[in-house]
Amino acid sequence: MNSIKAFAPATVANVACGFDIFGFAIEEPGDVVELRRRDEPGIVITNITGDEGRLPRNPEKNSVTGVMLHLLKHLDIKDFGYEVILHKNMPLGSGMGSSAASAVAGVVAMNELLGNPLTRQELLPFAMEGERIASGSAHADNVGPSLLGGFVVIRSYHPLDIFTIPVPDDLYCTLVHPDIEINTKDARYILRNEVSLKNTIAQMGNVAGLVAGLMKADYDLISRSMVDVIIEPVRSILIPEFKEVKTAAISNGALGCSISGSGPSMFALSRGRDNAIAAGQAMQARFAEAGIDSALHISGINKGGAKILEH
Amino acid sequence: MNSIKAFAPATVANVACGFDIFGFAIEEPGDVVELRRRDEPGIVITNITGDEGRLPRNPEKNSVTGVMLHLLKHLDIKDFGYEVILHKNMPLGSGMGSSAASAVAGVVAMNELLGNPLTRQELLPFAMEGERIASGSAHADNVGPSLLGGFVVIRSYHPLDIFTIPVPDDLYCTLVHPDIEINTKDARYILRNEVSLKNTIAQMGNVAGLVAGLMKADYDLISRSMVDVIIEPVRSILIPEFKEVKTAAISNGALGCSISGSGPSMFALSRGRDNAIAAGQAMQARFAEAGIDSALHISGINKGGAKILEH
Repeated sequence: MNSIKAFAPATVANVACGFDIFGFAIEEPGDVVELRRRDEPGIVITNITGDEGRLPRNPEKNSVTGVMLHLLKHLDIKDFGYEVILHKNMPLGSGMGSSAASAVAGVVAMNELLGNPLTRQELLPFAMEGERIASGSAHADNVGPSLLGGFVVIRSYHPLDIFTIPVPDDLYCTLVHPDIEINTKDARYILRNEVSLKNTIAQMGNVAGLVAGLMKADYDLISRSMVDVIIEPVRSILIPEFKEVKTAAISNGALGCSISGSGPSMFALSRGRDNAIAAGQAMQARFAEAGIDSALHISGINKGGAKILEH
Repeated sequence: MNSIKAFAPATVANVACGFDIFGFAIEEPGDVVELRRRDEPGIVITNITGDEGRLPRNPEKNSVTGVMLHLLKHLDIKDFGYEVILHKNMPLGSGMGSSAASAVAGVVAMNELLGNPLTRQELLPFAMEGERIASGSAHADNVGPSLLGGFVVIRSYHPLDIFTIPVPDDLYCTLVHPDIEINTKDARYILRNEVSLKNTIAQMGNVAGLVAGLMKADYDLISRSMVDVIIEPVRSILIPEFKEVKTAAISNGALGCSISGSGPSMFALSRGRDNAIAAGQAMQARFAEAGIDSALHISGINKGGAKILEH
């Protein structure tokens, strides 16, 4: 096997009340990495499409090749020669897990090319290194679901403890990306380091409610639990029309609506594809009223995560 | 029907990571309220056993009769005459939900005597008033499970949103009450009003893990999630030998161990009755080494909650 093409999906992290602990993958869009052996030693990026020239071409600074280098080092493979093409199919800094999708596609492609020495779970720390390269901290709430699929819970970071929970088949995600940009580091910087005990308890109640609602397929409970009293009130000020767009989603059939990742994308969850479409159209219309273009993605919860497209 | 005897079980609130949001009922012990109609108007407490004379005999200040008066007022029943006997079968200020059990037994007895005008769920706010009478705040994490049974989650207090989640049949509770006393108000007073965002995230992860672990019957996940980084580190200083007793429980088969309610009782959860007994004996032995007597209760999770013993 000398050539691999791998796909890793976009993801919604935080999921209302679940800051840093919840994330899920959607079906589309996703990044694609092409990986080929070559005769000369070392790793080179021969092309990146869709990034408007913004991602680093230096293999150590690019998260795709950065995670590959980590993996090769871990496996003690030294006499290698590879060339990499990255197709970015989602915007950078969008809140759709863009850097995670690239890193996951990279690490999955390399693992496949090497004959799958590591399991998906074992690849997780390497993919997280891609997040560290891209944003300075090794978060798992995008990488986890992009790699593993499903609705992911990160119980703990030290030690890393991550698992998936079942979700109802009829749960659909609406993802709307407005044409504005937020830097992930800024979005984290504006958060307060202290939370009131009262808000902590409220958030814990909603976390418990969302997990139980998803596992019981109790759509009312899911809806009541999609409340974030800690992060959303702060970060939403970075998204123009946030309140109006959220209201539009919920008035048009969504169970709940919040910020995807650190924004500016907004997501909604709905019962059934029709509600997800209606919510998405209402959200786009509200952004458009304020003169903001947006892209709409409707998807079920992606249960498989990253996949190999071709050898 | 002129006479009722009702039983309401002891409860474990907080349940490690779930401060103010989790609680479950055990089989025994529980308080018993006897309620009889009488010819003279008004409500009187004719006897209280097991309280060493410490509970108020004034019907408005006693939580059992206090909740009855609230219920009668709500139902607009004015020409009543009742006499009440309360059998306290657990110590006051023990962290076993003592005041909740009395209030729940009272409200269930009165509702039964009146022909059950309200459902169990509808009785909840009245039972919570009993907590307000006893401790100054209307918490639901003892009252909820004592009234409804099972493992209870309080998603929200305003509005009140409470539900139960399924737990594995083979889950057993060890409850050890050391012969020392903590005032619930003091135990609340020493808590900080602010929590670091880092600890909030850690606690949320454990809340999600405990709900998922219980619903999936994943004992390892239950065990890993029984971690409280917010409340236990503060309140445990009020309980002599806390660390040693906790270690004894976990080293002898318990999945996890923490403070029951606001203490000083400590509880453990175990897979199977044998582990629950072994953990309990080790906990008692460790308290005894420090010269502290204790009472031990082993129980499955009580799925039915309060019940009518006889008419």
